[in-house]
Amino acid sequence: MPPTPAAYTQLCELHREAAHLSAISSLMNWDQETYMPPAAAAGRADQAAIIATIIHERRTSAKMGELIGACESDDVVMKPGSETAANIREMRRDYDMATKLPSDLVAELARVGSQAQDAWKHAREKSDFAAFAPWLERMFALTRRKAERYGVPAGGELYDAVLDEYEPGATSAMIDATFTPLRQRLTELLNKVADAKDRPSDKPLNIKADPAAQHALGLFVLGQIGFDLSGGRLDVTAHPFCSEMGPGDVRLTTRYRGEMFTDALYGTLHEMGHGLYEQGLPKDAHFGEPIATALSLGIHESQSRMWENMVGRSKAFWKWLHPHGKKFLGKQFAKFDAKEYYAATNTVTPSLIRVEADEATYNMHVMIRFEIERALLSGAMKVKDVPGEWNKRYKEYLGIKVPDDRRGCLQDVHWSCGLIGYFPTYTLGNLYAAQMWEKINEDLPDLSKRIAKGKFGDLKTWLNQKVHRHGRRYSAAELCKRVTGKELSADPLMRHLTAKAQAVYGI
Amino acid sequence: MPPTPAAYTQLCELHREAAHLSAISSLMNWDQETYMPPAAAAGRADQAAIIATIIHERRTSAKMGELIGACESDDVVMKPGSETAANIREMRRDYDMATKLPSDLVAELARVGSQAQDAWKHAREKSDFAAFAPWLERMFALTRRKAERYGVPAGGELYDAVLDEYEPGATSAMIDATFTPLRQRLTELLNKVADAKDRPSDKPLNIKADPAAQHALGLFVLGQIGFDLSGGRLDVTAHPFCSEMGPGDVRLTTRYRGEMFTDALYGTLHEMGHGLYEQGLPKDAHFGEPIATALSLGIHESQSRMWENMVGRSKAFWKWLHPHGKKFLGKQFAKFDAKEYYAATNTVTPSLIRVEADEATYNMHVMIRFEIERALLSGAMKVKDVPGEWNKRYKEYLGIKVPDDRRGCLQDVHWSCGLIGYFPTYTLGNLYAAQMWEKINEDLPDLSKRIAKGKFGDLKTWLNQKVHRHGRRYSAAELCKRVTGKELSADPLMRHLTAKAQAVYGI
Repeated sequence: MPPTPAAYTQLCELHREAAHLSAISSLMNWDQETYMPPAAAAGRADQAAIIATIIHERRTSAKMGELIGACESDDVVMKPGSETAANIREMRRDYDMATKLPSDLVAELARVGSQAQDAWKHAREKSDFAAFAPWLERMFALTRRKAERYGVPAGGELYDAVLDEYEPGATSAMIDATFTPLRQRLTELLNKVADAKDRPSDKPLNIKADPAAQHALGLFVLGQIGFDLSGGRLDVTAHPFCSEMGPGDVRLTTRYRGEMFTDALYGTLHEMGHGLYEQGLPKDAHFGEPIATALSLGIHESQSRMWENMVGRSKAFWKWLHPHGKKFLGKQFAKFDAKEYYAATNTVTPSLIRVEADEATYNMHVMIRFEIERALLSGAMKVKDVPGEWNKRYKEYLGIKVPDDRRGCLQDVHWSCGLIGYFPTYTLGNLYAAQMWEKINEDLPDLSKRIAKGKFGDLKTWLNQKVHRHGRRYSAAELCKRVTGKELSADPLMRHLTAKAQAVYGI
Repeated sequence: MPPTPAAYTQLCELHREAAHLSAISSLMNWDQETYMPPAAAAGRADQAAIIATIIHERRTSAKMGELIGACESDDVVMKPGSETAANIREMRRDYDMATKLPSDLVAELARVGSQAQDAWKHAREKSDFAAFAPWLERMFALTRRKAERYGVPAGGELYDAVLDEYEPGATSAMIDATFTPLRQRLTELLNKVADAKDRPSDKPLNIKADPAAQHALGLFVLGQIGFDLSGGRLDVTAHPFCSEMGPGDVRLTTRYRGEMFTDALYGTLHEMGHGLYEQGLPKDAHFGEPIATALSLGIHESQSRMWENMVGRSKAFWKWLHPHGKKFLGKQFAKFDAKEYYAATNTVTPSLIRVEADEATYNMHVMIRFEIERALLSGAMKVKDVPGEWNKRYKEYLGIKVPDDRRGCLQDVHWSCGLIGYFPTYTLGNLYAAQMWEKINEDLPDLSKRIAKGKFGDLKTWLNQKVHRHGRRYSAAELCKRVTGKELSADPLMRHLTAKAQAVYGI
């Protein structure tokens, strides 16, 4: 084998350094959400802007461009199908996108994002949309500038430019084409469920559970499933997230309520799915290179939703968890058996909070956000109209009345920190997860039995081998085809949801 | 008044940015000591090196040099006695020192320092000096290179170069001239105490106290004294420290033991003294400028030791604290009265751990470290001989046998992260504190009465006005003269220690 050219080695080193700087930025953000004292907010916003500028300088340096160019004309590096060629392809994509953004815009997005995130936290607590509105204006204005810089693809719209950042290759038209029929099929299913005579009790969800005991249970579950806690943590934040900050450092967060212990449990399982993906990337040898970086948010979300829903809301999982739940949560928990918890955590009930929604209605939340953020970006909707438009859609899609903005349009952190064009990937994640899950169960026919015994190793290995270890080597569409043998389709998700509804509601 | 020249404004902006980057580096270090998962250590070391290199580039940039030069020849900026002139004087000092260090050495110090700190943590737990020795070799070798770059002053030695970094203007000869007679006077005092017939009971120190209750008490004390917790925190680490990480962000750490609650209490008071200094610097308007930066480690330490010892070990403080101690620590605490706590926390007993030592023997610990690190740096002592030399001196100076390296030469974090030339500033801090304390009591004659009522405001204001708000405007020697009217002397400390010994031991 001919030796790796020096330009390639140097390029990987530059990427490694830039990734370390991004990791530092992640640490700053994690700290802001977990432990940072409130008076530090203004200074942290300045720091976020400074570090974002440095990262942007690195990622757009002339040297980086030259080295990518040199590698692109090197046959050894560009050998078809090789890891090196995949790296260069993705480095080119990143470089071309980054160089489209001026440095001052990147700094502004970081600074205003940090400030707006702080403003969102306070506005959400007080359910005060008016206090947050000016920040939302600014973040959408900045995102519009970003999208314009990325450029609108032929026949596309502004939203496509930001969507592509999170889900390479996806377009608004594709999302529309997926969401519209999905919404129809979901509405039919929801109507059937609404008419069902069997209605499982949700009493098991309303037991009292001490936050410290919930935390201990969460750590136990993480350890049993195989999330490496020597290279990770679990903390508490207003909005759960998973943050990767360098090799051997993947941090999850969740939130505890005195009742509804399943919120924290499923929050933890969800973020753990993201975390296992991050821990499964080949960072030891390739940290910072695209092949050791997560592929897309849709694929990322497929991992979190699979552990949360396909695993965590299964009969088998509850069978395994139940005796441990008794140990950690005590008498209150023991009042209900595994079947009752299974049924209760699979009730389909239109509700207000996306991250606490059941599997079926969840996608409706995503569709509403997609419509609103798309309209805000194009200018078809005004920021001041967000609460009204939000509440109108919740009535129409889910048949519920939103009592306040805290539980309405202020519930999610995303828009405040500039994650616009991000929401559709949640539903893409559900679709990928369901399609992979069918394949996994073909490959591992006794998976349910294993899960019921607390044996999660084969599933984790399957995901490590089929998904995690490839990083960005293939596109999401290619990976889906390679892993499941098929193009992405809504059928597996609908089969999964229908089967659940049959099991729980007897329809 | 003529307008501030553009060069000056630009220079302050560059310093502000560099200070924000240093703040980010402090956050990384704080995180490493508090919450970072163990597997992240190697990556964090790389990150520390990357950020140190960036900071060094900024602090040594040609632009920075040009702007300082431009300001130095500007009469408006250099107006004698002005804030701007003080800033330029100190910026020049920093720039000249920084440009003496090559970038690769700065990166190595950061990387190896981060790794060695991790190695120290593990070695200390296992009392395994052999595991730490290679890291100590490396840190001293790197520090030797650093000292050689700074350059040895005429008639001085290598140690002077690093000492000057922490205590501008100090030299080994000056430290010797201070320490030698001080050691003699302390030895005389310790001998008198050893012969004393009255020996206060140390039983009050050995009550059982729940760490969570100790933490709550610590937070209460911080709040009552006036440490701004909305701009700070209190966490737990192996080695207590105070870390400043940008405007509105000063974080303290302490450590809790099930018994000896006074360790954590005095650790917290000590770090709070540092924290009040940081919170008292004029960062709102001048963040990153020398006039909003702490003057020297000796002055910093004067603040921490004053709150820990002059305040925290006073009769008046215990009178105030006692009812609150009962509330937080319960029955066990209530077994002893304020006078008994006062006496117990002022016993003079040669002991192993510096940060837990009494006021009188404390300085002996410092002297031993000074001698050892000075000899290590010059090459007169070998790393392998450190435990032996350490233990020999503990026998000679304090008459005690060191049972293991965990409680001997491995007890402190400093050497692992390159803080060499730092220890003497602890005793300088005691000297400054005692001299200021005499002046404070002249200015505030009813201070004891106020403290006994929990009124700490006047003392805090005095320190804010006389010390904190000046930053690096004056040299430490100048500040001492301005504040106390006299040159630094060991007499106030000896008077303080002798008066305490009289009160407690009746000698």
